[in-house]
Amino acid sequence: MQNILSGLRVIEGSAFVAAPSGGMTLAQLGADVIRFDPIGGGMDYRRWPVTNSNESLYWHSLNKGKRSIAVDIRRPEGQEILSRLITLPGDDCGMFLTNFPAKGWLSYERLKELRKDLIYMNLIGDRHGRSALDYTVNCKVGFPSITGVGRADEIPPLNNPMPAWDVITGQQIALGLLAAERHRSRTRQGQLVKIALADVALSTLGNLGYIAEAMINETEREAIGNNIFGTFGQAFECNDGERVMVVGVSPNQWKAIVSVSDTENQLQELQERMGLDFRKEGDRYHGRDEITAILKPWFKRRPFSQVSAELDNAGACWGKYQTIHETVNSDIDCSTDNPMFQMVDQPGIGAYLMPDHPLQFTGVNRDPVRRAPKLGEHTEEILAETLGLTGSEISKLFDGKVVASCG
Amino acid sequence: MQNILSGLRVIEGSAFVAAPSGGMTLAQLGADVIRFDPIGGGMDYRRWPVTNSNESLYWHSLNKGKRSIAVDIRRPEGQEILSRLITLPGDDCGMFLTNFPAKGWLSYERLKELRKDLIYMNLIGDRHGRSALDYTVNCKVGFPSITGVGRADEIPPLNNPMPAWDVITGQQIALGLLAAERHRSRTRQGQLVKIALADVALSTLGNLGYIAEAMINETEREAIGNNIFGTFGQAFECNDGERVMVVGVSPNQWKAIVSVSDTENQLQELQERMGLDFRKEGDRYHGRDEITAILKPWFKRRPFSQVSAELDNAGACWGKYQTIHETVNSDIDCSTDNPMFQMVDQPGIGAYLMPDHPLQFTGVNRDPVRRAPKLGEHTEEILAETLGLTGSEISKLFDGKVVASCG
Repeated sequence: MQNILSGLRVIEGSAFVAAPSGGMTLAQLGADVIRFDPIGGGMDYRRWPVTNSNESLYWHSLNKGKRSIAVDIRRPEGQEILSRLITLPGDDCGMFLTNFPAKGWLSYERLKELRKDLIYMNLIGDRHGRSALDYTVNCKVGFPSITGVGRADEIPPLNNPMPAWDVITGQQIALGLLAAERHRSRTRQGQLVKIALADVALSTLGNLGYIAEAMINETEREAIGNNIFGTFGQAFECNDGERVMVVGVSPNQWKAIVSVSDTENQLQELQERMGLDFRKEGDRYHGRDEITAILKPWFKRRPFSQVSAELDNAGACWGKYQTIHETVNSDIDCSTDNPMFQMVDQPGIGAYLMPDHPLQFTGVNRDPVRRAPKLGEHTEEILAETLGLTGSEISKLFDGKVVASCG
Repeated sequence: MQNILSGLRVIEGSAFVAAPSGGMTLAQLGADVIRFDPIGGGMDYRRWPVTNSNESLYWHSLNKGKRSIAVDIRRPEGQEILSRLITLPGDDCGMFLTNFPAKGWLSYERLKELRKDLIYMNLIGDRHGRSALDYTVNCKVGFPSITGVGRADEIPPLNNPMPAWDVITGQQIALGLLAAERHRSRTRQGQLVKIALADVALSTLGNLGYIAEAMINETEREAIGNNIFGTFGQAFECNDGERVMVVGVSPNQWKAIVSVSDTENQLQELQERMGLDFRKEGDRYHGRDEITAILKPWFKRRPFSQVSAELDNAGACWGKYQTIHETVNSDIDCSTDNPMFQMVDQPGIGAYLMPDHPLQFTGVNRDPVRRAPKLGEHTEEILAETLGLTGSEISKLFDGKVVASCG
């Protein structure tokens, strides 16, 4: 944890990946993020992957560093506590993040009555108000149609297993809250901020040039396997079956590949034969299959250890294909050798490697990575210290089962 | 463009996707982002996709909303201008974003001499100082090994064509600059902020639960095609060949699938036969192949138009598989019907659909989406108005070819 956002407080009511990861990000940067959940947990409290004892590694990974209050959200007394928490006074309070339906007591209009300058971040599925998940927006923007090899309109589309839109949205939610807070600190104005998961994917399609390409060039992208579009990049197999991804995008990266593989003459001959100039990225793309054929034997004749040493020596840009299990169990960057990671004990689950945020703020200390809370772990302290309720008020809430702790 | 960050100024020297998209994000939110480039353009000024006249749709899409100054960076006079620009006084200035080598005149140490509280965001490849691109970190964290169908250690790995790590990093860079600026406004302390592309991928692996799963459960994820891990989600083909992704993650989503397909009895029988309870997500995952077989005929008997109407009617969560060309040319969400998009003329290229940032700040107006600058379009105004140089000083720089405009 890095205390760069020290003092900032955000209340979160959320499910799935994007919204919880937005709150987690702010917690990793030192904010006090209070997550509320129904007593017993919400719909993703047991989401897979789970341990043998049915603890969710998904839920606990996405809620690191937050405080937890467990409340019966259906009851007016529970709603009142949360409304007060969301609209607490103070410059660093009054920020709410949710992907729950913004209706009734949880609507912006209702909460704004309690704090006029509330900042309310509302994640929705699409702009029409329909639900959407990463997988239903990913298919919509076309990337599954160019995963694999073949013509986009002929091959069966293939999903990306990593929910990229969720992860991007999570960072944008954190960004949006900071931007709105900066604005409020200057103007005293709060506001509703909305973001639709589908729009995150569609805007990225534009920012990466795909929309311009389809409209201006009127072309359709093909699925090109492990090649990189418009330049040179390809996967190669070593003689022990290990695989590496090698890229020649910048001039230096390309020179490194040519020199390490000692293929300058062959590539020179190829350029002349094809009428191409491999100093140009686009020409390297035109000649990608022929270049790959020339480079392939160099990798195929060496074990991975030698390939890796020679590529590093030449200053090439490359990566090793690993399974997730391999990465976690044998990659030194996925270990405590990397200062971003720490081994942390998660009660009920055990100790495992937890990441801090990848941003490294050299002006503040790196404090220990904070685990996820147990459900309701901070109910009492939030009621007493954050909301300022008296002991008897708190007892009444526990006795009436309006709130619960994890004990 | 939304003026939420009005007044903020960031200087950017960058290439590839992540760093430029970070600056573009801040420009979309109203910051004055000044990008410097070598005269004639940097290494990605002509990167693919390009138009028939060799204008880069990649470069122009990633640099929307910025101002451009073209400078001979190798000459001391050019370096001095940029150093002064990066370290201009004022609360809203003194922020620099780069993925260039942080050495010599461009090092944090050197620039800090000119402005003690400088905020310097430095994107690097990996923590060891090696270069890395999206594709070389993606293979490292294992997602290509679970794309497609089969055992992670047996199938050939398959790259994701969408550079997710670059896009995520871009948003994190914008987030990090805002967090550091908030910190500076409270403490008067600037700082160097570092972020490594490889760490972005590794931290995400942890945040999504994959690291915990590999360490605690000691299992390896399989490549499961278009299924969603741990719950129910699958791609189905309609009778006209169109495909849809349908998800049953939440209880309501699952109920909608069962009711619309009228398969309650068959699924009930299946549960009993397999000893599963499909109210549990994990049990839906265990029975995914059998569930898919039961649902398949419902889709296969209907054209897409009917499938889509019935799914919407039932409140199901689903998406259509489209090629990028289809999305751009026939999806109403990828058109000016969506307030996030505007048709904007990009000189030298033509008019195309450009997105604003997906965050929608309801407390500020949506101003027109700003196109990318022409290279050096703002050189003169930046020298005169931002740096305050005199007419004769500026003439001398142009005459000496230290700077250039686009004219």
